[in-house]
Amino acid sequence: MRDLSPLLRPRSIAMIGASSDPRRGNGRTLRYLIEGGFDGPVYPVNPNRTEVQGLRAYAGIADVPGPVDAAIVAVPAAAAVQAVHDCARAGVRAAIVYAAGFAEAGAAGRELQARLVDAARGTGMLLLGPNSLGAFDARSRSFMTFSSMFDDGYPEVGRIGMVTQSGGYGSQVYKLAADRGVPLVQWVSCGNECDVGAAELLHAMAHDGGIDVLLAYFEGVRDGPALLAALREARCRGKVVIAVKAGRTEAGGRAAATHTATLAGEDRVYDEVFRSLGIHRADSVEEMLDVACVAVRGRRPAGPRLVLLSPSGGFAVQMTDHAVQNGLVLPPVAPALQERIRALVPNAMPANPVDLTGQILNELPRFGEVLDLLLDGDAYDAAALFVGMAGGAPTLADAWADALVDAAARHPAKALLLSIVTTPGHVRRYEAAGYAVFEDTCRMLRAHGALVRVAASTPAERPPLQPPDPAWAALDPRGCRNEADARRLVGELGIPVLADTVCADADAAVQAARRCGYPVAVKVLSADLPHKTEVGGVVLDVFDDDAVRAAVAAIRERVAAARPDARIEGFLVAPMAGDGIECLLGVRHDPTFGPVVVFGAGGVMAELLGDRALRLAPVDEAGALAMIGETRLVRLLRGWRNQPAADVAALAAAVAQLSRYAVTQAAAGCSIEINPLLVRRAGHGVVALDALVAAG
Amino acid sequence: MRDLSPLLRPRSIAMIGASSDPRRGNGRTLRYLIEGGFDGPVYPVNPNRTEVQGLRAYAGIADVPGPVDAAIVAVPAAAAVQAVHDCARAGVRAAIVYAAGFAEAGAAGRELQARLVDAARGTGMLLLGPNSLGAFDARSRSFMTFSSMFDDGYPEVGRIGMVTQSGGYGSQVYKLAADRGVPLVQWVSCGNECDVGAAELLHAMAHDGGIDVLLAYFEGVRDGPALLAALREARCRGKVVIAVKAGRTEAGGRAAATHTATLAGEDRVYDEVFRSLGIHRADSVEEMLDVACVAVRGRRPAGPRLVLLSPSGGFAVQMTDHAVQNGLVLPPVAPALQERIRALVPNAMPANPVDLTGQILNELPRFGEVLDLLLDGDAYDAAALFVGMAGGAPTLADAWADALVDAAARHPAKALLLSIVTTPGHVRRYEAAGYAVFEDTCRMLRAHGALVRVAASTPAERPPLQPPDPAWAALDPRGCRNEADARRLVGELGIPVLADTVCADADAAVQAARRCGYPVAVKVLSADLPHKTEVGGVVLDVFDDDAVRAAVAAIRERVAAARPDARIEGFLVAPMAGDGIECLLGVRHDPTFGPVVVFGAGGVMAELLGDRALRLAPVDEAGALAMIGETRLVRLLRGWRNQPAADVAALAAAVAQLSRYAVTQAAAGCSIEINPLLVRRAGHGVVALDALVAAG
Repeated sequence: MRDLSPLLRPRSIAMIGASSDPRRGNGRTLRYLIEGGFDGPVYPVNPNRTEVQGLRAYAGIADVPGPVDAAIVAVPAAAAVQAVHDCARAGVRAAIVYAAGFAEAGAAGRELQARLVDAARGTGMLLLGPNSLGAFDARSRSFMTFSSMFDDGYPEVGRIGMVTQSGGYGSQVYKLAADRGVPLVQWVSCGNECDVGAAELLHAMAHDGGIDVLLAYFEGVRDGPALLAALREARCRGKVVIAVKAGRTEAGGRAAATHTATLAGEDRVYDEVFRSLGIHRADSVEEMLDVACVAVRGRRPAGPRLVLLSPSGGFAVQMTDHAVQNGLVLPPVAPALQERIRALVPNAMPANPVDLTGQILNELPRFGEVLDLLLDGDAYDAAALFVGMAGGAPTLADAWADALVDAAARHPAKALLLSIVTTPGHVRRYEAAGYAVFEDTCRMLRAHGALVRVAASTPAERPPLQPPDPAWAALDPRGCRNEADARRLVGELGIPVLADTVCADADAAVQAARRCGYPVAVKVLSADLPHKTEVGGVVLDVFDDDAVRAAVAAIRERVAAARPDARIEGFLVAPMAGDGIECLLGVRHDPTFGPVVVFGAGGVMAELLGDRALRLAPVDEAGALAMIGETRLVRLLRGWRNQPAADVAALAAAVAQLSRYAVTQAAAGCSIEINPLLVRRAGHGVVALDALVAAG
Repeated sequence: MRDLSPLLRPRSIAMIGASSDPRRGNGRTLRYLIEGGFDGPVYPVNPNRTEVQGLRAYAGIADVPGPVDAAIVAVPAAAAVQAVHDCARAGVRAAIVYAAGFAEAGAAGRELQARLVDAARGTGMLLLGPNSLGAFDARSRSFMTFSSMFDDGYPEVGRIGMVTQSGGYGSQVYKLAADRGVPLVQWVSCGNECDVGAAELLHAMAHDGGIDVLLAYFEGVRDGPALLAALREARCRGKVVIAVKAGRTEAGGRAAATHTATLAGEDRVYDEVFRSLGIHRADSVEEMLDVACVAVRGRRPAGPRLVLLSPSGGFAVQMTDHAVQNGLVLPPVAPALQERIRALVPNAMPANPVDLTGQILNELPRFGEVLDLLLDGDAYDAAALFVGMAGGAPTLADAWADALVDAAARHPAKALLLSIVTTPGHVRRYEAAGYAVFEDTCRMLRAHGALVRVAASTPAERPPLQPPDPAWAALDPRGCRNEADARRLVGELGIPVLADTVCADADAAVQAARRCGYPVAVKVLSADLPHKTEVGGVVLDVFDDDAVRAAVAAIRERVAAARPDARIEGFLVAPMAGDGIECLLGVRHDPTFGPVVVFGAGGVMAELLGDRALRLAPVDEAGALAMIGETRLVRLLRGWRNQPAADVAALAAAVAQLSRYAVTQAAAGCSIEINPLLVRRAGHGVVALDALVAAG
């Protein structure tokens, strides 16, 4: 891993193209460095001036008298290549290129970006951008950006770091975080990532002891495995990571591709990547910052057990809904404890939610006493309190704070959430006491639920997986021309396939049917017809010789009508499969993260339901069982309404096996879909009825 | 409908139990009436004092010298019955009872509440509460509440009315709405609704010309039909209605039942009620107020067509996702128009989203010019602009406002949304120009999407429905004892059922099977076994006489093992149904809103999928088609992957028919479930394979 400190915490900064107007573009950056208190030398470079904004200016980077950690290249795209070349030759350790008009702007721009990379090649100089809004570190006061984000002040040193693929998104997050009193300590807009990329930056921040919470904004990812490694590193070092990946919808994905010219891959794969690492995927700036606030300010919850308190029955109900919807657990208040609460507050309905009724407003210290009763002992990991606008009423605000602040100090191990509308001064008092404070109960519980999920998941190193069979190396998916080949490949992986016979004509089909025993299935064999059912290429439950001949004729006729271009290579005859549950099992190649394995309902239901679980390959049997358990189909597999349970163990083995094979074939970018995979009753295994193999 | 004006806009107010401490409970109400500027006489009633807070006090309500529109009964529950009695006898027109401890507090409380109602009976006096936090109308300055909600000031006269079943919820909404500059004009906490109820209050507000937006908070509804009528009235008069119904989750539903002691019914039915009337169902206070803000402040959108503008590619992508997720439509920018935009802003990517890139920050007037180009003509109903924190930077804030405010005036018919972080003064300037202003793009587009949906739906009077068959009156679901009866009933409604024969034993079953032709299905007949498959009571595909005997024996044995208590009344023999798509069609009785009809996937899939559409009964054929179209199953019914389309017309007729019958049997609270209903290919109708009838 390279040392990114010249970029992230530079000790000296040069500004190529420094301007004297402190209110605009390049001049703004120079003002930020001067006003913001950068703690090292700043060297403006401008061939036309000897002084810029009160600093001595130099004609070229070569003229700068001291060593330069970071050079800001603030010249137009056309001049940037020469400037980067000069910096690299002058021994600058890192350059930030602001200009747009490179890879994001078509073929000519891509060519220009290649020349930019060439200009630094071999010198070891780090290159951030082009098309970057810059970077800052609040500890070194290196405010290197042309955004207006510091026009109304400079940040305190916070505990949050951010890497963003959109400078506009990142500057908005910076500003709103600062306004909420949770400032960012380090921030990088990575632009076109021609050299330093998002994964490398996240890796550096993962190792930064001054950062507790990492924010990331993605549109597309250039190096999936490096990103996975960086995010895993951050999680293993206890950072809370909150990511926004834009382009959830098809239209959003197209817009993202236009914006960053990256291949986004399948959005669901990002869901799985984030889930597997215990990273919260947020959908908006607001949600990102809500979670960041509880992570920075609130106490980390030890678990999901939550007690709800409210003087309003209405909010007690609403908080119950939102707690459950966010995966939190609401253990009932023990009967003896309920009695003690009623002794304090006679009208209370203390089941959990604990509704203390409006009565409590006349004796607020009791609220703290009830909280004590609930948090003594180990029934709850956290308490969420609704106080609302009554907490800010001039007649009540101090009494509320007196009741709640002291109680917080008595339970330092419990996470405390407070929904209140009060003065900024009172909010600060609650926050200092350990409360995470929100106005809206819904956002409060969403953020708490996210933190609980993140805290519960430690991304352990993957368990050792059964190694792939060496023989598989020779089993090339690129050799599969049709269904018969595909089924043979699946069979060689150890997944049972229904024994079928390739027949050239009706006579051969009759012979084959007699051999395997009636009833049989008859199917067309053709590399041109991946979806046989659609063209009438399948006849099931064929009971005698005449019916076999009729089936072959019918298939010929229907295929000729539907797809006259398709070459019929023959007919497959197989015994009917019998009873079982139809599943879909597949592997495919994600352009960013490599092979993924997919399991879900099979047959017609597959597409109708979208009931799928997905993992990065490989998975072991335990991982496969977890996947199966995520689908709604699992209820059927476990034995629905007194039906016998299906052979879930054999199914899990098949899922794991196929996922291991996919990894050996990652280079081929192969895609295999077994659909339907019939899961028979427990002890009777699975059988692949149809398979499709394609190499990318 | 009763005249609620004595309660909603009283001309004189008496305060029973007036206290001299203006900071607490009853004293607070009196202070609000004095300080808040109520425009009529206020009469404190207190037998122990001659003066309270500077006003002359009276010993009893009978001593008050003038007529009293509203009396606030602010005495403990035990004393409230006598106070209400005295008020009623003194000719008071409306009484508000604050005290809790009535129907929400168990059997003794229910009894006390009954006496409260008795005390006013026959006098025509309106009774609000008990357990009410009060009511206010900002026009008459009648601030009748003991909540602290006016402790820091009194509201301007706004355009929003609210009815709330939770005083705490309502006071929070009041406060946050006022803080956001969209104050409420009228507000009622309806408490236990012993007399005046939520529906009656909403009806009155629907007729109030000073109210444009109606907010409602429900936990349970006492009179479903009255609520439907009131909400329909509000919608027909052009009000935007935003409702929160708490208790979405099972745990939330239990908490709501504890809180209000009402029967909530099925949460999904509320979804359908709100959807059908064009009412936005919000999930939180914040969402409720976001939608209220765009409804009160922004311009009403003429349709869903939206153009997105941003100087940040990142937000262009995010807004695209959120627009699509909220049902908005993003028509592409016409190529010629794209050219004209590029002529103004060379680096722009103007497809929709229109990404103007950071370049635009150096020439902000161009932003307004691009907006003009997009909004001239009829391609878009609305524009959503992201400006973000750059809009509030001291160096840019005025230039942004200059560019955008003038443009708004040039397009008065277009809805305009602006996401910006700027000073309160600038926000006011944008709002005055017609922009709905938000910080967060996600919340902005959620609120706009909600308003578009609401605006698009006018709850027309229901089309005339085919009247129910008079013969149905005699067709009593309470007469159905078992499946045979249930199928007969369904058949008499004109929905084909598979002809079956009731057989006493195996010999009779063989005769029946020969008559209808092999293969057949054999099923157990027993009123004790509503779910026959679960106990092994069904054998399908029975091919000959011996197999019929084997099936009867197997069923006897399995049923005896699984349910030894069940009485076997015989066996049903029916021909096998052949091919088709298995659906579920049912009607059931909602405790609040009466008969509802449900359609979805049938067989085992029914519960696995939860793929159901629901309507209040009755529906006509067009309504039934719309229901069918809401399910994922419709893709199968329309002909999936070259399969023939199913007989959707016959299916719709069956849905409509059953829903009409359910209305005639509403008194019986009947529930009928046809599962599976087999839908054959187009032209071949439907056939009920199994049915279950239960009377409530």
